[in-house]
Amino acid sequence: MIHDRTLSLSGERLAAVYRLACRPEEVEARARAICVEQTVEFPEALIDDPAIRAQIIGEIASLAPLDGERFEVVIRYPVEVAGRELTQLINVLFGNVSLQPGVRLHRVRLPESLLRQYRGPRFGAPGLRDRVGVQGRPLLCTAIKPMGRSPEALAALAYRLALGGIDLIKDDHGLADHAFCPFAERVARCAEAVARANRETGGRSLYLPNVTAPADEIVGRARQAKAVGAGGLLVCPGLVGLDALRALADDDALALPILSHPAFQGAYCVNPDAGLSHGVLFGQLNRLAGADAAIFPHWGGRFAFTQAECRDLVDGATCAMGAIRPILPVPAGGLRLERVEELGDFYGRDCILLIGGDLHAQGPDLVATCRRFVARAEAAAGP
Amino acid sequence: MIHDRTLSLSGERLAAVYRLACRPEEVEARARAICVEQTVEFPEALIDDPAIRAQIIGEIASLAPLDGERFEVVIRYPVEVAGRELTQLINVLFGNVSLQPGVRLHRVRLPESLLRQYRGPRFGAPGLRDRVGVQGRPLLCTAIKPMGRSPEALAALAYRLALGGIDLIKDDHGLADHAFCPFAERVARCAEAVARANRETGGRSLYLPNVTAPADEIVGRARQAKAVGAGGLLVCPGLVGLDALRALADDDALALPILSHPAFQGAYCVNPDAGLSHGVLFGQLNRLAGADAAIFPHWGGRFAFTQAECRDLVDGATCAMGAIRPILPVPAGGLRLERVEELGDFYGRDCILLIGGDLHAQGPDLVATCRRFVARAEAAAGP
Repeated sequence: MIHDRTLSLSGERLAAVYRLACRPEEVEARARAICVEQTVEFPEALIDDPAIRAQIIGEIASLAPLDGERFEVVIRYPVEVAGRELTQLINVLFGNVSLQPGVRLHRVRLPESLLRQYRGPRFGAPGLRDRVGVQGRPLLCTAIKPMGRSPEALAALAYRLALGGIDLIKDDHGLADHAFCPFAERVARCAEAVARANRETGGRSLYLPNVTAPADEIVGRARQAKAVGAGGLLVCPGLVGLDALRALADDDALALPILSHPAFQGAYCVNPDAGLSHGVLFGQLNRLAGADAAIFPHWGGRFAFTQAECRDLVDGATCAMGAIRPILPVPAGGLRLERVEELGDFYGRDCILLIGGDLHAQGPDLVATCRRFVARAEAAAGP
Repeated sequence: MIHDRTLSLSGERLAAVYRLACRPEEVEARARAICVEQTVEFPEALIDDPAIRAQIIGEIASLAPLDGERFEVVIRYPVEVAGRELTQLINVLFGNVSLQPGVRLHRVRLPESLLRQYRGPRFGAPGLRDRVGVQGRPLLCTAIKPMGRSPEALAALAYRLALGGIDLIKDDHGLADHAFCPFAERVARCAEAVARANRETGGRSLYLPNVTAPADEIVGRARQAKAVGAGGLLVCPGLVGLDALRALADDDALALPILSHPAFQGAYCVNPDAGLSHGVLFGQLNRLAGADAAIFPHWGGRFAFTQAECRDLVDGATCAMGAIRPILPVPAGGLRLERVEELGDFYGRDCILLIGGDLHAQGPDLVATCRRFVARAEAAAGP
């Protein structure tokens, strides 16, 4: 081995809370293996620099059984290992161990010094409420769809949704830059349509186009969207990477609210003994990246999240993380209008209710349906 | 509903081969639900435009049992729905269904018209072999590590590895832009060290720095690396998004071989009834994005891939995909020198063998160990 300059880290550490599914006699060795895998990735016995062994490798802070074959292990990593980069922070937390079965990242606890490196959500709940001018009830969201419609038809739809008082009118996440519905034309027409409806109603509905796009086009599309009057952005971090969302959120020339969509992220959470908890994936990581609200499938819709998973998600979206703002959960995924009261009971006022297809199933008068959606949300929120 | 311009697609379709784990009586409804979820995401009965129903929604091409509660379903989507964007192609293949348990994307079959939109690997196996001047045996790779060492120490290590004849000397994927080991300094020193060794040996070892980085810094780091003599790039698409890898691979000003690293991608494949097959995740998607080789944990190392999964990966890395080149599998993950012959038997000559820590466990003369690694690979490949 080569003799080296002296390594001298601060000693400050971040903590990752893992849940391990394994036999009791294996758990300590597995936890120790994670400490090594996520840092030096090198046989400890072959590291001849004691400073690296002492300062770089993760350390087990606690290890406790949850039930017979599940354990909670807290591992602390030096803050310097995560550096100043979200990509590297995620790598330290779950890069290589993602490849091992039976390990799930349940929570992340970051010290102030590290949290200060992230702006987090620019708007969060209060900022979003101010933008749309709505206090005291859940915000309401819907999507323009289905794919296959022309920009004119989608704009006509967006107009009616805004006329009906929906706060956030987003692109369906499948609307990209299609030959049959080009991004530039769709966004310009829809932004104009929502602005026109706002002028008529005095409302402040926002249009949020989908800027999930090739890596070298994301920022350009977002700026183009802002230039024609988009009121926010929809981003799928599973498709573009969480740090691409972070770059949009940090962009002072944009300064637009961001809705995070879970497309292609499901594989991280559907296996309860692997991947990331709902709280980390949709809550904590979205907050670090700077999303203002996180869409996810509420239990009982077309998808299979459980009540407990939805609660865990809300915890991750709102738990203490220094100056990083809480974000709004956006339950979605085949929700029906008749569930507004139940959703209000479950999430309280601080959420965004996203109903898509069911608004169209209520009869031909979409504007009236949207107004009923608003009225139900107001009633559910109470006085 | 709004009357619309006439939709007129080509009728050409791409095919996604899914494996569903469900009860036999559910399988048809689940397959049909995927056709809708991945395209219009809207209740079919509410779509009043017959052109959208006929042309946009996915169609079930076949449905067959694999065993009692597993089925293989082939769904065909219009090529226009995937557009010209890798992000949207992945979204159509597995965006929302990733959130549903019991569905796995097993293979992708893309028509020529769609494949032509992707350059794919710029080098592939023959291009990589030409760059390092090695034919007839597996290429050899190792990583500079452990994290915590200074740029000088890592460069001294890279020098010895190149002197020993390792073809590809990559950064450990945990080396980012750390205060204790800044990217710019590390890359300049290591590139210089490998070039110096090459001058002494007449060899052509390549140094591949890790350019996994914040979204707005990836291209800059790659260009900086190229400017100081890096011979290739290491990228973790799980952390930066597959399309960020694609943007690097397509960049004619870079034109460097790219090694894809699986950090943070494991959750996509560790559950056999969810996520993506190894062949899709590490093979087909890396090829579409333009990686030239894909690192993954070989069975029997520190991770838990099975032999069958490794074979599936090789199939995805090499199966026919129009003009998209095959890529080299890079078995890794705690491999030991004593397994070189077995690896040669399993993968044949067209692979890259990545051994990290075990090269350092063979005694103090690392250069001699590397030369033994080369000799064993030559012997294993036969005459």
